Amino acid sequence: MKTFTRADIDALPQRYRAAMINSVSGFKSASMIGTVSAEGQPNLCIVSSVVHLGSNPPLMGFVMRPPVVPRHTYENILSTGFYTINHVSTAQYREAHQSSASYAQEVSEFEAVGLPAGWREGFPSPYVAGAPLVLGMKFIREMPIEENDTRFIIGEVVWMDVPEDCIASDGYVNIEKAGTVTLSGLDAYHRTERLARLSYAKPDKALQELTD
Amino acid sequence: MKTFTRADIDALPQRYRAAMINSVSGFKSASMIGTVSAEGQPNLCIVSSVVHLGSNPPLMGFVMRPPVVPRHTYENILSTGFYTINHVSTAQYREAHQSSASYAQEVSEFEAVGLPAGWREGFPSPYVAGAPLVLGMKFIREMPIEENDTRFIIGEVVWMDVPEDCIASDGYVNIEKAGTVTLSGLDAYHRTERLARLSYAKPDKALQELTD
Repeated sequence: MKTFTRADIDALPQRYRAAMINSVSGFKSASMIGTVSAEGQPNLCIVSSVVHLGSNPPLMGFVMRPPVVPRHTYENILSTGFYTINHVSTAQYREAHQSSASYAQEVSEFEAVGLPAGWREGFPSPYVAGAPLVLGMKFIREMPIEENDTRFIIGEVVWMDVPEDCIASDGYVNIEKAGTVTLSGLDAYHRTERLARLSYAKPDKALQELTD
Repeated sequence: MKTFTRADIDALPQRYRAAMINSVSGFKSASMIGTVSAEGQPNLCIVSSVVHLGSNPPLMGFVMRPPVVPRHTYENILSTGFYTINHVSTAQYREAHQSSASYAQEVSEFEAVGLPAGWREGFPSPYVAGAPLVLGMKFIREMPIEENDTRFIIGEVVWMDVPEDCIASDGYVNIEKAGTVTLSGLDAYHRTERLARLSYAKPDKALQELTD
């Protein structure tokens, strides 16, 4: 093990530090956020910070970087109040990564990276056709993280498309079977191999493996 | 695809809904939070919501469930101001899962589940000896999520132990090589297999695979 003090971390070159600190938080969700501007321009961007906040109501959060450059996703969420969260799959991870490039406002990342947009009747934001799992989200509010001017975006699930053959009898969704990938650092994509599902833990009771 | 409306989601049985909504956020980090009480009692608990908030300063967040039952980790973080984040590995994931059981306050989960505690001179909180990667964290503040009475805990990295042979030339840490696992749903543990590292995306430039 190599120990880094805080002084060591602060002394690292900026890009090296970003690559390292982004790695040490562990594996990340890989999602694409689909939005549309008030003028009707679709937008797509990959994020690695979607996190489960609660199931009742169904809440998700994710982190938006500072709006020092135009952040189309952020502006679109605020102006329309809606967005989609689309799982990144083994089949689409290169296109998803490409969506992080700084395209001009008038460019649709769906078209630029070659991912087809889908539209749900009565829902303003586009989703990624072919994504293994899609959440239709309603913006609730943002919490500012003053230390670095990022914002934590909180939203609630208003609909979701889940692959039916991946739903276990207890409600667990086998996202590995669905083809969802995980991210590490800024740019590493991984598929997964399940080790086990483990039973609800209780003191003095041995864990069982769940077979579903 | 099976579509769930919000009414469908709200009508699901509670445990089924929790398993499903916990699955659809994507793959999660798998970490153990190490703390100690003001009286010196060590505590360990698994969390799946550690998320990277920024690299300069190095910030991490995670979600704490409502303190309706005693939450020793939460109380210990508030009273001491410090905690550790320990990656869960392929070698320790069963013990890590067992740490989620509701042990009494006077029980050390380190002892109960069979994970050795390590102590860093000058740092109050214990870490998991044998964890592939450890972050020493200083509590900054909590942000209440009023919708479900959870709290988003924000802290900064004050030291970290990183496996030296997993550090790439650009700062990326190969946490797959380190043995870190990822979680899905409430209880599924996965190892990973890297598909690729991809170069920084720019418009009109083809992605390259990084070899490090």
